[in-house]
Amino acid sequence: MQQNSLSHWAWGHARNFPDRQTRQQLGQMIEALLGFSPQEVKDPVPLENVQLSPLRDPPGKPPSCITIKPEDRVRHSYGRSYLDQLRGFSGDFNAAPDLVAYPQNEQQLEEVLSWADSHQVTVVPFGGGTSVVGGVEGPRETSNYLMSLDLTGLNKVLEVDLESRLARIQAGIKGPHLEEQLREHGLSLRHYPQSFEFSTLGGWIATRAGGHFATLYTHIDQLVASIRSISPQGWIDTRPLPASGAGPSPDSLLLGSEGILGVISEATVRLRPRPNYRASATVHFERLEQAVEAARTIAQSGLHPTNCRILDAKEAAFNGVSQDGKTLLLLGFEAKDRPLDSFLAQAMNIAEKEGGECPKGPRYRHPQESQDGAAAWKSAFIQAPYLQPQLISLGVMADTFETCVSWRTFPKLHQALMEGMKAKMRELTGAGKMTCRFTHVYHDGPAPYYTFLCPVRPGQEQELWWELKNTASELLLEYGATITHHHAVGRTHGPYYRRQVPQLFQKMLQAAKDTVDPQGILNPGVLLDGRS
Amino acid sequence: MQQNSLSHWAWGHARNFPDRQTRQQLGQMIEALLGFSPQEVKDPVPLENVQLSPLRDPPGKPPSCITIKPEDRVRHSYGRSYLDQLRGFSGDFNAAPDLVAYPQNEQQLEEVLSWADSHQVTVVPFGGGTSVVGGVEGPRETSNYLMSLDLTGLNKVLEVDLESRLARIQAGIKGPHLEEQLREHGLSLRHYPQSFEFSTLGGWIATRAGGHFATLYTHIDQLVASIRSISPQGWIDTRPLPASGAGPSPDSLLLGSEGILGVISEATVRLRPRPNYRASATVHFERLEQAVEAARTIAQSGLHPTNCRILDAKEAAFNGVSQDGKTLLLLGFEAKDRPLDSFLAQAMNIAEKEGGECPKGPRYRHPQESQDGAAAWKSAFIQAPYLQPQLISLGVMADTFETCVSWRTFPKLHQALMEGMKAKMRELTGAGKMTCRFTHVYHDGPAPYYTFLCPVRPGQEQELWWELKNTASELLLEYGATITHHHAVGRTHGPYYRRQVPQLFQKMLQAAKDTVDPQGILNPGVLLDGRS
Repeated sequence: MQQNSLSHWAWGHARNFPDRQTRQQLGQMIEALLGFSPQEVKDPVPLENVQLSPLRDPPGKPPSCITIKPEDRVRHSYGRSYLDQLRGFSGDFNAAPDLVAYPQNEQQLEEVLSWADSHQVTVVPFGGGTSVVGGVEGPRETSNYLMSLDLTGLNKVLEVDLESRLARIQAGIKGPHLEEQLREHGLSLRHYPQSFEFSTLGGWIATRAGGHFATLYTHIDQLVASIRSISPQGWIDTRPLPASGAGPSPDSLLLGSEGILGVISEATVRLRPRPNYRASATVHFERLEQAVEAARTIAQSGLHPTNCRILDAKEAAFNGVSQDGKTLLLLGFEAKDRPLDSFLAQAMNIAEKEGGECPKGPRYRHPQESQDGAAAWKSAFIQAPYLQPQLISLGVMADTFETCVSWRTFPKLHQALMEGMKAKMRELTGAGKMTCRFTHVYHDGPAPYYTFLCPVRPGQEQELWWELKNTASELLLEYGATITHHHAVGRTHGPYYRRQVPQLFQKMLQAAKDTVDPQGILNPGVLLDGRS
Repeated sequence: MQQNSLSHWAWGHARNFPDRQTRQQLGQMIEALLGFSPQEVKDPVPLENVQLSPLRDPPGKPPSCITIKPEDRVRHSYGRSYLDQLRGFSGDFNAAPDLVAYPQNEQQLEEVLSWADSHQVTVVPFGGGTSVVGGVEGPRETSNYLMSLDLTGLNKVLEVDLESRLARIQAGIKGPHLEEQLREHGLSLRHYPQSFEFSTLGGWIATRAGGHFATLYTHIDQLVASIRSISPQGWIDTRPLPASGAGPSPDSLLLGSEGILGVISEATVRLRPRPNYRASATVHFERLEQAVEAARTIAQSGLHPTNCRILDAKEAAFNGVSQDGKTLLLLGFEAKDRPLDSFLAQAMNIAEKEGGECPKGPRYRHPQESQDGAAAWKSAFIQAPYLQPQLISLGVMADTFETCVSWRTFPKLHQALMEGMKAKMRELTGAGKMTCRFTHVYHDGPAPYYTFLCPVRPGQEQELWWELKNTASELLLEYGATITHHHAVGRTHGPYYRRQVPQLFQKMLQAAKDTVDPQGILNPGVLLDGRS
């Protein structure tokens, strides 16, 4: 257990959940900013008072790395979605696993899986526990024992190939620890999802996590050269290759498999040196449409910026980046050994043609920004998840969803989402705000990311949340977008995922699962809804 | 039948197979260049005299687009591998399919597949017929009827989305026809495999074909946004998306599936404008190792050249690019609306640091080159496949194989391949040459491509070829390389592929196949060796 500094219910470190007075002040800010009144401020149920599912003795002779300690069970009950934190806040840990396994090496991992398979114990792999889609919570439809398989004991960089810039790394390693071990080799993975501080390499791979590169290396997919994973039928060990044309990619079947095809224990990943050169600027636009057109042209230009993020006016304001009511386009380039000013100049040139107001001078900082736009954004980006649990304590619902769609469809989808969600929030709560940003951009379309906020009455949170989730998800399906660009499917997106993806593909995936997991112990109910 | 201008046995257009006298001159050149004497020049068996497998009446009531005409059967017997052309040259068409289907639309495709499934007729999809790995030849182990499913009737660009730069295109379209239809929209797929003139979009997708981009968009994979394919169990229609994190990529399961999971009828692909700016140069190196180091540094630099090809000294000489005994590095950049001189300058700067001799002046042409290196190479690249059948008629074996491996492993693998193959050729034939080039480069390794040439006695071609193929393939497996970077698996690479790829992955793939093709009619024996 290295997680004692972490909250048992809220995002990240416990120390970052502020006291009642600070949250009261936040409530006043919310009121001023959003125009609706938060509820009375409440406190979360402390760890020692939570309600936990009854303890059941594990079958057979469980391996020694398995524990049934209540605190471990509490800490492996949920991810960090709105609904997870809502339940955690109220002390509801009825979904807790029966047991938690902490293998420290592959031999123990094998033992755990073998024991689980022989007793039909459901296995839910657990990395950082930061899933926002119900990816680390077990199924409720079965009376099988539920085991959370904590992989953070597998946390070593095993081998570094400096010439090929590859490293073989154990899957349970967390972001900072991974970067720390790579630093001594002068290299970096440079994959920074919002959960970076807590989430693990294996989790990134299992969920196709999105990183900070806005183009080219947007997902962990592009940074993975091979994967080693174990299923009840044995090991799957792909060959680390820069590329291959030998049949369908084995790695691609494991990327995004969310634990249903095996437990990822190791991967070979592609590294790069830390950048010595950076160039960035924030461009301001009167209208979102102009910024979108600029982003499209830049995405199709072959300039491949590291950062190409749009913040709509509200997103920029809520995050303290800019208050001028304009849409922002954050542009950034990075490289080890090449100045990038000409790249940035070309990108700004494109933005200017679309009506963008580009900063002048050497620092590329806009006078109306609180500080450098990109830096302000980065800081807000890391702090944002800490806000959600505070808002829960104030009776405010704040959540996000994200997608990816073609440039041609984006304007229609965006309008439908903004209007549909705001109308739904007004209908159900009398208020509500929506903001939009782009997290990644591609030749053929952007990855828009939406935040919605509204007041919610105690006891109605779950129903309201599902109403809003369903409103957004139905529109994503209707407009041909994906149910998720980088938040994964888990249990929450499952029903929508199964309407998005070809039925025969789901049957093939189920058949693949049945092959390596004939008893169906691996994360059942995630992605697919059951046996074929 | 639009193929009448094509040879019934040799690569490409029949008119490009020269007369006896010209081939005799080629024989003299070979002798001077390679130091071994070709056999007496022979002529191929003409179409009307070939030996064809006996005609069998098709079962049931075949759809009207199916034919049993001998010429159609001959023309769908083989791909264009050395062994294929060897058999074709000698008039051996015993592997001919019983029938050839020419669906002109999806309805006919459905009818054909449905008829085949109800009569257990083996279906081998056929696009351009340019496979060099036995990908379009049926199995011999079964007495089932064998149908070649010619998809070239499905050859239309159906829809172009200019804003997202996407096009929905039928899979049977050939390279030039595809580009011609896109040209009117000012766009291009810019995917140029060596077979471009004859091969089809569907074939590229089914085999994960490699194109002319040396970095980033190296395979058709990166250019595909969605795939539509049909199996005996129905259609699989993926959603065109710029990117998605929703479970394992359905497209990735179809990319490289070589006809075993379905017949690809349509795809949405990513387009780009034709480049207005180009910058290229050829750098000369004393030693291969220097060029490799330069290519590695450039591949890891983030400059993303369009062209970054190494030709070793022999490869450069044989292809008429340069005769100075040096290793060449061809560098090229292309873009629509940005001058690229600074990119090229940076790449040349890297090459110079590794000892490369860079051309000076505005045209970047080296005085020792026959013409511009890249242009000379391009011309030789397109003509190269026409040489193989001519050499067959002279009793000279010429063939290629290719792979991909990490930068760290490449030198060891290269040495083992050069020494191993030359020793084997000398042992078996008393002579033999090997050349090497890089076709693509990645952050973590190159895709080297080898050509081998040796004399061969009549009647011993097949045995010798398999000895050499096996020598090369065993070394590729031993050194952790892939059995193919972009030539696909087919029947030829099957046994090596099945040792390269995790066994459990093969079982999953077989289970996926059994799901959509329960009777196993789709290209059996390709990739996988049979039922699970």
